Amino acid sequence: MKFLHTSDWHLGRQLHNQSLLEDQEYVLEQIIQIAQQRQVDAVIVAGDIFDRSVPPSNAVKLLDDTLDKLVNQLSIPVILIAGNHDGAQRLAFASRQMRESGLYISGTLGQQIPAIKLDAKNGESVVFYPLPYAEPATVRDVFECEATSHQQAMEVLVEQVKQHDSEGLNKVVIAHCFLDGGDESESERPLSIGGADKISPKLFEDFSYVALGHLHGPQYKGAQQIRYSGSPLKYSFSEQHQAKSVTVVELSEGECNIDLVALEAKRDVRIIEGYLEELLASGSADAGQEDYLMVRLLDKSAILDAMGKLREVYPNVLHLERTGLMAGDKKLELNREHIKKGEFDMFTDFFDQVSGESLSPEQQELLKQTIEQLHRGDQ
Amino acid sequence: MKFLHTSDWHLGRQLHNQSLLEDQEYVLEQIIQIAQQRQVDAVIVAGDIFDRSVPPSNAVKLLDDTLDKLVNQLSIPVILIAGNHDGAQRLAFASRQMRESGLYISGTLGQQIPAIKLDAKNGESVVFYPLPYAEPATVRDVFECEATSHQQAMEVLVEQVKQHDSEGLNKVVIAHCFLDGGDESESERPLSIGGADKISPKLFEDFSYVALGHLHGPQYKGAQQIRYSGSPLKYSFSEQHQAKSVTVVELSEGECNIDLVALEAKRDVRIIEGYLEELLASGSADAGQEDYLMVRLLDKSAILDAMGKLREVYPNVLHLERTGLMAGDKKLELNREHIKKGEFDMFTDFFDQVSGESLSPEQQELLKQTIEQLHRGDQ
Repeated sequence: MKFLHTSDWHLGRQLHNQSLLEDQEYVLEQIIQIAQQRQVDAVIVAGDIFDRSVPPSNAVKLLDDTLDKLVNQLSIPVILIAGNHDGAQRLAFASRQMRESGLYISGTLGQQIPAIKLDAKNGESVVFYPLPYAEPATVRDVFECEATSHQQAMEVLVEQVKQHDSEGLNKVVIAHCFLDGGDESESERPLSIGGADKISPKLFEDFSYVALGHLHGPQYKGAQQIRYSGSPLKYSFSEQHQAKSVTVVELSEGECNIDLVALEAKRDVRIIEGYLEELLASGSADAGQEDYLMVRLLDKSAILDAMGKLREVYPNVLHLERTGLMAGDKKLELNREHIKKGEFDMFTDFFDQVSGESLSPEQQELLKQTIEQLHRGDQ
Repeated sequence: MKFLHTSDWHLGRQLHNQSLLEDQEYVLEQIIQIAQQRQVDAVIVAGDIFDRSVPPSNAVKLLDDTLDKLVNQLSIPVILIAGNHDGAQRLAFASRQMRESGLYISGTLGQQIPAIKLDAKNGESVVFYPLPYAEPATVRDVFECEATSHQQAMEVLVEQVKQHDSEGLNKVVIAHCFLDGGDESESERPLSIGGADKISPKLFEDFSYVALGHLHGPQYKGAQQIRYSGSPLKYSFSEQHQAKSVTVVELSEGECNIDLVALEAKRDVRIIEGYLEELLASGSADAGQEDYLMVRLLDKSAILDAMGKLREVYPNVLHLERTGLMAGDKKLELNREHIKKGEFDMFTDFFDQVSGESLSPEQQELLKQTIEQLHRGDQ
């Protein structure tokens, strides 16, 4: 059984108000080609298909076209699960009517974890268990249990998978979660405020492969086969040095072979630093003129319309920092720190400064709930 | 071939800010039962499935559950087309992956009109041609033609259907449009401002049956088999006297038999008129206490919290008119007239009154475009 593991497509996402749809279309086309050339038996997308619960309609169309190419034109089965960004109910629409075609969308959590048996060209069938992203509260509701943390909730789900009789076939779990020790990027949205969202990789040790989504950098935790494919594109400047890829997995005779296949972006996401004149001069010879750029200008003097001048050479400058003007100033560093902080800390700081008092535990709880509610949006 | 024709479900719709989801669930359950009891070979829904292009997620779930019961549990094929309220692209998502299951969703217009051949228990197969709602501009784009009116656009689509070789089988067209001479209700949204939206029934004369959506009252135009099923629920007080139904159609040996099967609402939509004391007294014996009501009070004296008092007996009073206070006053009639007017006329009146001038033709055109754009929303 050979399958392609990818995740965190975030279709419809913007980077500093710039639509990335063209870039997403470009990279999905590569994923389709890789699936075809490597002759995979299945494609797995481990959550965060869309960037938000109500995606723009052109993002819906892009997913529709991509699935048509994979499922209908190439006859490759596709399994998708909802991530924390997806609207579970919307994604699940009519999924029961799609299964026969080879498209398996797991949007909402049900009492019965689907067991999808797929056949392989090498004759070794595999059973896939899609676990859509679910808050502990949802797991409590569905399975009438006491799970309060993400760890406990996942234990309940994993137990379901372990109990299923795969008739001796390899079991592959698909999940969207945050493994303890995993490396974060700035473009992921925390699964819960305050850090009760981490899960021990040990939970997944018994499976042939665990296809994970949520973290945007490719990595594994605990064991080689407990793995994040990472996102296909850089969704923040903090990811500038990440090499994006899809993971091609081959399960054969008890062995698990893993191959990271690099993806090429239509436009790279990177940070450049220098004096304006230098940047403008070297830019004309820069093969990556169309890249999405954060520019850090070292000039200490005032410059009229620095952004306009830079965009004549680099049309996709998305953010400009006057590092030079701020050298020796702590403000810049503070600003960067602020950007890294989540909404919870930002609000707490703001409240401290404005009222001179700290939030009470009740107020903190209310704030957490409010932020989580806003993130969930209309599910 | 026996099939059930319904339309204009408007899932997610509100009546005077009251969610109708429970009422919609109740009536869809009846439609499922009718389909089962009458042993129909197919269910046709002729557009305006949802009330808006981005429906609330509980409306998505209701449609999902309904389709599961019809298609998966009862094995009855279902054909849906987008109406002017639906988001065509969203509704079309993954529709190519649903066909094998017997669910045919026609969201966006393509160059190839689908020809869906369905088999019947009586042996007489039929070919269904779903024509999703499309503005003339869309038809121009897709078919590279000159159509500027809805009539011309539909001519292009109907020509496609006529040219298709059904191998001698009966042809049934499914469309969402406004037939000339049709009776309107207040709950329909005009297809275009200014009246270029009407289509001659003659266009459809050659087909065995034409399953139409858009008008909310059941009716036919031109010929018995060119027919609106009407909506399953009353979506405005102007529909208080309409009898809602689904249409069960049987095509057999060149005959077309039509049977309107009545639907019962969980809560009726009606207008009651009288003096407060009388209404309160008779209300306690009213079997329709839960109905959605517009109340016209004849009392001429001031009443403290009339709405509160009425809601103690009739909890779902949605609108109150003090007819008595306004008797002899032209204001009420004016208000009612105003409500009936569309946005275009309302704005035109407003502009006249405020500026003392009429809108220029250019301004009128701009206003039309703006209103149409707002109605389309995010498709």
